[in-house]
Order: sequence, then structure tokens, then C-alpha cells
Amino acid sequence: MPKPATSCLIVFEGGEGAGKSTQLQQALAWLPTQTQQPVMATREPGGTPLGRELRQLLLSDRQLTDHTELLLYAADRAQHIETVLRPALAAGYIVLCDRFIASTIAYQGYGRGLDLALIEQLNRIATDGLTSDLTLWFDLEVTLGLQRARQRGERDRIEAADLAFHQRVRQGFASLAAQEPERFTRIDASGSIEMIAATVRAQITRFLELQSPHD
Amino acid sequence: MPKPATSCLIVFEGGEGAGKSTQLQQALAWLPTQTQQPVMATREPGGTPLGRELRQLLLSDRQLTDHTELLLYAADRAQHIETVLRPALAAGYIVLCDRFIASTIAYQGYGRGLDLALIEQLNRIATDGLTSDLTLWFDLEVTLGLQRARQRGERDRIEAADLAFHQRVRQGFASLAAQEPERFTRIDASGSIEMIAATVRAQITRFLELQSPHD
Repeated sequence: MPKPATSCLIVFEGGEGAGKSTQLQQALAWLPTQTQQPVMATREPGGTPLGRELRQLLLSDRQLTDHTELLLYAADRAQHIETVLRPALAAGYIVLCDRFIASTIAYQGYGRGLDLALIEQLNRIATDGLTSDLTLWFDLEVTLGLQRARQRGERDRIEAADLAFHQRVRQGFASLAAQEPERFTRIDASGSIEMIAATVRAQITRFLELQSPHD
Repeated sequence: MPKPATSCLIVFEGGEGAGKSTQLQQALAWLPTQTQQPVMATREPGGTPLGRELRQLLLSDRQLTDHTELLLYAADRAQHIETVLRPALAAGYIVLCDRFIASTIAYQGYGRGLDLALIEQLNRIATDGLTSDLTLWFDLEVTLGLQRARQRGERDRIEAADLAFHQRVRQGFASLAAQEPERFTRIDASGSIEMIAATVRAQITRFLELQSPHD
């Protein structure tokens, strides 16, 4: 079944506290008022029943090696792509996905210093060639993002090591945005939820118009 | 920590009902009477706490895609190698392992027809260069092996499709043995447990003598 010209994968990426999940929910509420196409939301990791079990394993106390962790994320991704993303795209959906391969590159590669070539190799195996059509990167100063995350109770304390780690993650996203300026769009996430949502609506509208068949 | 000259990884491989696990137990009882070196036994998949949880996932009802399954096996292997095999080899152990990379090639590659290049790529990532020093392949006619497996209650019924599958698995092991005749030794598994055990003892003795430092 060929992928309809208008189905597409829009990925929401960003560091801690950047508000990407909130923005995804806003877009999910707004987008169906603008298009006849079906719209759905999903996430990585944890977008499948297997993924949710792997997520438990990844968050448990087990001492996992770096390679093990990368392979488990890749397994989650392979399952999600083959059982959720590809069928949805084949059925003409606009799919909004909370995190995708950029997060693995930014967090595991830049943040934790794991081999980027290895991550790329595993991403290729797991995605089997599927890429996002548009990635929205919600960018925010790290100290501000961590402060927001802390305010909503996600973190009890922020250590110096965390700060350096999240700075590297941000550099990772910046590097990916520099490599693909057309498909990887930086969005300033320092404003209000409504201001950022307006930018998201503008970006998605522009993208979908560019994608639409002209007749 | 450099690997002592005499530590080594001996792998027991074979199809269903070939008796490799029985032979591994026999070797584990005998080997410590022949050497001062510490000896241990382990297995793939399931040689670590994580591996046992992944094994449950792999055996559960979940519809796993081929790539997902390969990636989960690779995650089990990466964890086993880094947390069990490498430390044991570094500490001078003779490690007896029930199944290793040859099983993935034979079962997933030859048996199920998954891409051999992809399997090799994942094996390289998971093993990070670790290979077995000696692989003993317990070879048995497929019908006989399945009959034995059935007798010990492992299978209720054997279908025609199973037979063809297990023939391909056997071809996989045969192909690996042909590629590395020095390190991958075929053992005729059609005799009695005691006859086969004698062959195993002879093979391991010969291998360890070849490996010993000459001074």
C-alpha cells in the first residue's frame, strides 16, 4: 500500500522542561480542525505494549551496560515503527510523535558520550529507512528548562553534573538542526504556552501547505 | 586487566534434542578434576537477570517484529558479555556457554530467513569483538533430535513446517562449521550420552593442551 502524498510524521523534540509534550497535546487538539486527514499522537519510548514493558526494564534498578541500553531503545523503536508508525502513515495519518531518533542521538550520543556511529547504525536497523518529515525542536536554556521540570515535581534536586549533561544534550539537538535546517526546525520555547503554540501552528500549517498536492 | 593465556570460552551449540545442555553439565562436572583453573557455566539467552526478563518477553504472546526480536536477543547478549563473560574471562575462568552467536545465525538467519548481514552487524555490536575460543556443535539428524525433544516432553506435536525449519537450522550450523573448521567442531550426537561425553572430554583436553603456555 503506497504512502499517500499527504500522510506525514511530525516529531516533537526537546530537552527537559521545554514543553514539547504540552505542545504536542495542543497541536493534537487543533490540527483536526484544520484538515480532513486523520491525526494521531504517539511516543518513543513506550509507544507499544512491548515498549511500555521495556521502559519499566530501562527505569528499573538493573545495572544495564551502555550497549544493552541502546539495543533496548532500538528494539522499542523497531516495534513502534513497524506496528504503529508505518501502518498509520500507510493509512494516511498525520502522526505526531513525542521524541524520535534525534533524542537518542542527543541524550545517549551527545549527553552520555556513547559512540555516534554505533547509534546511527542502530537507528538505521530499527527504523529500516523511516525518517521524520518535520521535526520541531523546542529549545530552551538548560537552567530554565530544569527549573520548569522541577516546578512540576519531576526532579527533587539538580546537580552540577546534570547541568553539564543537559548542556551537551542541547548541543546535540543544535547540531542536528544545523545539519538539516529544512526538516529540523528550532522553536524558541522560552515564551508562554500560547505563544509557542501559535508558532507551532504556523510551522505545521506552512509545512502541510508545502506538502499538499497542487492541482 | 589482560585476559590470562589460559582463560577461554567454550560454547555448546546444536539443534533441538541434540543433548548439548546435558553434555555441558557433564563437562562442568568433569573439567574441574582436570585443571586448577576455575570453571563456570552460563547460557544465552537468559544468562543475566535482565536476560531472564527479556526471555519472558520473547516467549510471551506479544507480536514482536523480526527486527525487534533480533534487537532483544542482541540486548541480552550485550548484557551477558559485559557483565558475565568478560569479567569471568578476565579472572581466568574456563567458561562453558550454552548457545552463543552461532545459534542466532542458525535459528534466526538460516531457520527463519532473516537477513544474515543484519544479524552479523548486531552480533558485532553486542559482542564488541568477543568470540568463542572453541565451539562444539552437537549434530544430530533432525527427525531424531525432535523425537528426543518430544520424549522429554518439550513438544506436543511436530509439524511438517517445523521439520523444514530445523533442517535449515542444521544447515546453518553446518555452514558455520565449514567456515571455521579449527574453532567450530562437529560432534556426532547420535550415540549414547556417555559416548558423546567421551568425545567432548577428548576435544576439550586437546584444545586446552594446545592453548597451554609452553615453557
